[in-house]
Amino acid sequence: MSNYQAPMRDMQFLLHEVFNAEKLWTTMPAVAELIDKDTADAILSEGAKLTAGVIAPLNRNSDEQGATWSNGEVTTPDGFAKAYQLYCEGGWGSLSGDPEHGGMGMPKMLQSFVEEMTQSASISFALYPMLTAGASLALSAHASEEMKQTYLENMYSGKWAGTMCLTEPHAGSDLGIMTAKAEALDDGSFALSGTKIFITGGEQDLTENIIHLVLAKIPGAPEGPRGISMFVVPKFLLNNDGSLGARNTVTCGSIEHKMGIKGSATCVMNFDTATGFLVGEENKGLNYMFTMMNYERLGMGIQGVGAAETSYQQAAEYAIERIQGRSATGVKSADKKADSLIVHPDVRKMLLTMRAFNEGGRCFSTYVAKQLDIVKFSADETEKQQAEALVALLTPVAKAFMTDMAYESCNLGQMVFGGHGYVREWGQEQLVRDVRIAQIYEGTNGIQALDLLGRKVVANKGKFLDVYFAEITTFIEQQANNQELTGFIAPLAGALEKLKAITVVIIAENADDKNMVGASATDYLAAFGLLSYAYMWALMAEQASKQSEHDFYQAKLYVGHFFIERLLPRIDGHIHAIEAGSKTLMEMPEGLFNYNH
Amino acid sequence: MSNYQAPMRDMQFLLHEVFNAEKLWTTMPAVAELIDKDTADAILSEGAKLTAGVIAPLNRNSDEQGATWSNGEVTTPDGFAKAYQLYCEGGWGSLSGDPEHGGMGMPKMLQSFVEEMTQSASISFALYPMLTAGASLALSAHASEEMKQTYLENMYSGKWAGTMCLTEPHAGSDLGIMTAKAEALDDGSFALSGTKIFITGGEQDLTENIIHLVLAKIPGAPEGPRGISMFVVPKFLLNNDGSLGARNTVTCGSIEHKMGIKGSATCVMNFDTATGFLVGEENKGLNYMFTMMNYERLGMGIQGVGAAETSYQQAAEYAIERIQGRSATGVKSADKKADSLIVHPDVRKMLLTMRAFNEGGRCFSTYVAKQLDIVKFSADETEKQQAEALVALLTPVAKAFMTDMAYESCNLGQMVFGGHGYVREWGQEQLVRDVRIAQIYEGTNGIQALDLLGRKVVANKGKFLDVYFAEITTFIEQQANNQELTGFIAPLAGALEKLKAITVVIIAENADDKNMVGASATDYLAAFGLLSYAYMWALMAEQASKQSEHDFYQAKLYVGHFFIERLLPRIDGHIHAIEAGSKTLMEMPEGLFNYNH
Repeated sequence: MSNYQAPMRDMQFLLHEVFNAEKLWTTMPAVAELIDKDTADAILSEGAKLTAGVIAPLNRNSDEQGATWSNGEVTTPDGFAKAYQLYCEGGWGSLSGDPEHGGMGMPKMLQSFVEEMTQSASISFALYPMLTAGASLALSAHASEEMKQTYLENMYSGKWAGTMCLTEPHAGSDLGIMTAKAEALDDGSFALSGTKIFITGGEQDLTENIIHLVLAKIPGAPEGPRGISMFVVPKFLLNNDGSLGARNTVTCGSIEHKMGIKGSATCVMNFDTATGFLVGEENKGLNYMFTMMNYERLGMGIQGVGAAETSYQQAAEYAIERIQGRSATGVKSADKKADSLIVHPDVRKMLLTMRAFNEGGRCFSTYVAKQLDIVKFSADETEKQQAEALVALLTPVAKAFMTDMAYESCNLGQMVFGGHGYVREWGQEQLVRDVRIAQIYEGTNGIQALDLLGRKVVANKGKFLDVYFAEITTFIEQQANNQELTGFIAPLAGALEKLKAITVVIIAENADDKNMVGASATDYLAAFGLLSYAYMWALMAEQASKQSEHDFYQAKLYVGHFFIERLLPRIDGHIHAIEAGSKTLMEMPEGLFNYNH
Repeated sequence: MSNYQAPMRDMQFLLHEVFNAEKLWTTMPAVAELIDKDTADAILSEGAKLTAGVIAPLNRNSDEQGATWSNGEVTTPDGFAKAYQLYCEGGWGSLSGDPEHGGMGMPKMLQSFVEEMTQSASISFALYPMLTAGASLALSAHASEEMKQTYLENMYSGKWAGTMCLTEPHAGSDLGIMTAKAEALDDGSFALSGTKIFITGGEQDLTENIIHLVLAKIPGAPEGPRGISMFVVPKFLLNNDGSLGARNTVTCGSIEHKMGIKGSATCVMNFDTATGFLVGEENKGLNYMFTMMNYERLGMGIQGVGAAETSYQQAAEYAIERIQGRSATGVKSADKKADSLIVHPDVRKMLLTMRAFNEGGRCFSTYVAKQLDIVKFSADETEKQQAEALVALLTPVAKAFMTDMAYESCNLGQMVFGGHGYVREWGQEQLVRDVRIAQIYEGTNGIQALDLLGRKVVANKGKFLDVYFAEITTFIEQQANNQELTGFIAPLAGALEKLKAITVVIIAENADDKNMVGASATDYLAAFGLLSYAYMWALMAEQASKQSEHDFYQAKLYVGHFFIERLLPRIDGHIHAIEAGSKTLMEMPEGLFNYNH
């Protein structure tokens, strides 16, 4: 069984056709000078080779072997070090980095595809460079010029890695109660003390240095999230000439034993008056960290689609090759003892569901990446502001909805294999275990839903929402008479009206009932995600319907119709659940939850 | 953290109040002489002690250690042998066995609770006695008196175990294409050859003998499922005095490495002209095996609820003890740095969803168990026939819907723990991995849906369905003016009408479109399950609303309302998906599923 092939055709369709990146790039001088269609395709093609040829073959063993810990040192699975070296030599770590510090300055739309390929090949592997890319981004946005010069080039090149040290044993979703402490020293540096947990790549054997981004409190700082500062804490301190100096007093106490992503070291990091350097200003650490966190959140959505793409490819191949049972409409393969699984409607339903979520999700992450590119590269201030609103609004949706649908997809892929899906050697169950974490980390999907509904919708009375809904409305109006889109536009318009109406209800109820947001959030995010995928499918269908009878475009239309008719109706269940209000959740006394005691 | 406590109060509520078992038993002489309320409670109480005190503590290690294979021998995890001995000494293996052969003859309603407790404590452990119980049932129903005398007593006592050998590498859902062969020998026995896979407990170190029930084809038998016979193939042949004789030529070639249930040995069994004995008549093996399979299918649903109950208990305790964030309506625990997780609406939503599915599921399995008891013990022929129809109709729903909801519940339980839910030591991720198999084995949930809609609904034009729907309609009519059930009856009636209407649509469409059943089946089963749980919640609410303000009854009503208002609305998404018809699934050419090639 083949392992994974990057879905090049779909990526090119999104880049060149649906989102017309070449035209967009002409409005962005910094991008236009770097890249055109041929360069973009060449980069994708090289990414496809590396991920399918080098990284994917390591994934099965990485699960069995896992990352291992001994005396503070972590050993990554066989082959990771060599693959990481090739990844770095290919310049993949610098793809969208700041050109002034050795980055290639490429647009996010392109980088997001390479990220997806890497996640498809191996989530465990992909996490190591992913954290470095996010840490680089935070430093690039918030560190002093001197600090950038000190760290960025070696991080882009992959010589050094980055981490994100937030969570503590008692402080996860609630970072405000963290206790890690940073005491100012006379030389301007700080002494950091405390324990951080769940630190991906906190220790590893891939890079010669690790640059930890650490959140901690300076004594006397305000209580809660407004008293958190960000520090750089390198594993090895640097000499004045930039060479590696003394080992810093930050050590890996152990690694977690987990459900999946076993090749990724999830570390307990102990800071024992470790030397750290303040990033930017005091007490703004949580804001700075959100630069990294938002990057990682979109990345998690992409991680989900990546895993589900691999699951789909293997499940589709299995469904075609495996023979079992006969078609309900009569024998299809008379020369064989049974027909292919693909003749059975329910097997097709599972595969089409995966396709609809995967391709809808890939389109959505590309759409968000496009907004990020506009924010970064556009010269048009109005366009930038609108894109900023969309990024803020859609990042939690990308993180949560894409990973929720990815988990469903990987579970369906596993089910296509029947009993074999439960057996490790086939790889399907590993995808389920690995992708499960994407719903949990970087802020659980419940936290994402609160972010969407509480901060991004209700708090600003729908200001961001107006931008998004206006764009969808314009598209609906433009396509109203497009006969090719019959079957897409009316359901999209219907879903949009439902979202608008329920948003009004929530904002009104929230005035009197502060639990309304929390009570509605996860259903709202799910409904919002379904609407967004309906919009993505309509965008894709519009492009596909202009084209010839070529298989690729025909498949797009089949899968798109399937999404609209079979999956979009789920929106009603979520809307009705929200309409039930918070009473159904809040009225039961706390004591009744624990009924055995 | 406590591990598991049997939900005694809920089981007693179902047994004594909702289903009024004592009254039912007075109509069943064979039961009435064995059991009354006190006996039933004493049995449950002893089961609770054994499962919580002896079996549950073994579960975490059983996952880490797993069952191991060496040279054809299987070693079960530490403690399993001792726990199994206690289980057998307590007579649990004989609970509902035939009294003429050493069984206790207890009703299924009682046995199902003990099964649930055992599954809650450890799915890996529970599978060993579960397969024996199912095999005993098949022998009890279909074997000759001599064969029963030879095997049943030692199987009830747990001295010998039973297995179910169906699947072959190329024949899973499609058993008709199996190739295992049974050649008649002169002495009336058969020589069995072939390989069976996924054989739970095919080899183990718990019992002195293993009685394999094997499906195989006698040369010259009809093609397909009508040419399958059932054989008893003991691991050790028996001497004339009943003592163990020669080792039979059936051996365990290896065990599977799986996602979960690692303490349960899933064996590849090789039959090398092994000596076997025909059960019943030739070519009726698949029918006979359905006696066992239907037992196991209800058992799988119970397994799901069992796992989800454990998940709930741990998640509820964690949500109360873990402090994180503040309530949206103001600080609740001013003396602490943060409020309990239970103040957050979305955490409550997760816990209430688990409760609603678990308690709805437990009620449903008890309802099905009651029908099984009526079939077995009732003297009233009409009542028996109706109960038979209900068992046939509801068994696939119990298997698939209960396990689907259990998987969702265990995933929610894991999510309540945040990042800690992904770490092995907390036990939540193991429950997700373990319970996942319940959706796959004993006929995937897709196969269950085809059984429900194709065989149990469409093939007999709704004959079984009429029995069930008539009962629900009677209940609705009786309770129409019950003010206490406002909020239950109208939604139940609405759901019933939706199911009736969509059933008519499917039966009509199926006349012209043979793919309609397959295209509708999984959504139909989900809608059917939601309707059934709505009926169960209405039954429970009716009892609870008669009672005092006692916490237990109040909780029932809170959770029941939550189910009706928050979860039942999902039914619309399923109905709409069915209305889309088979075209959305069947129109895409096979070649477009594998778009990379």
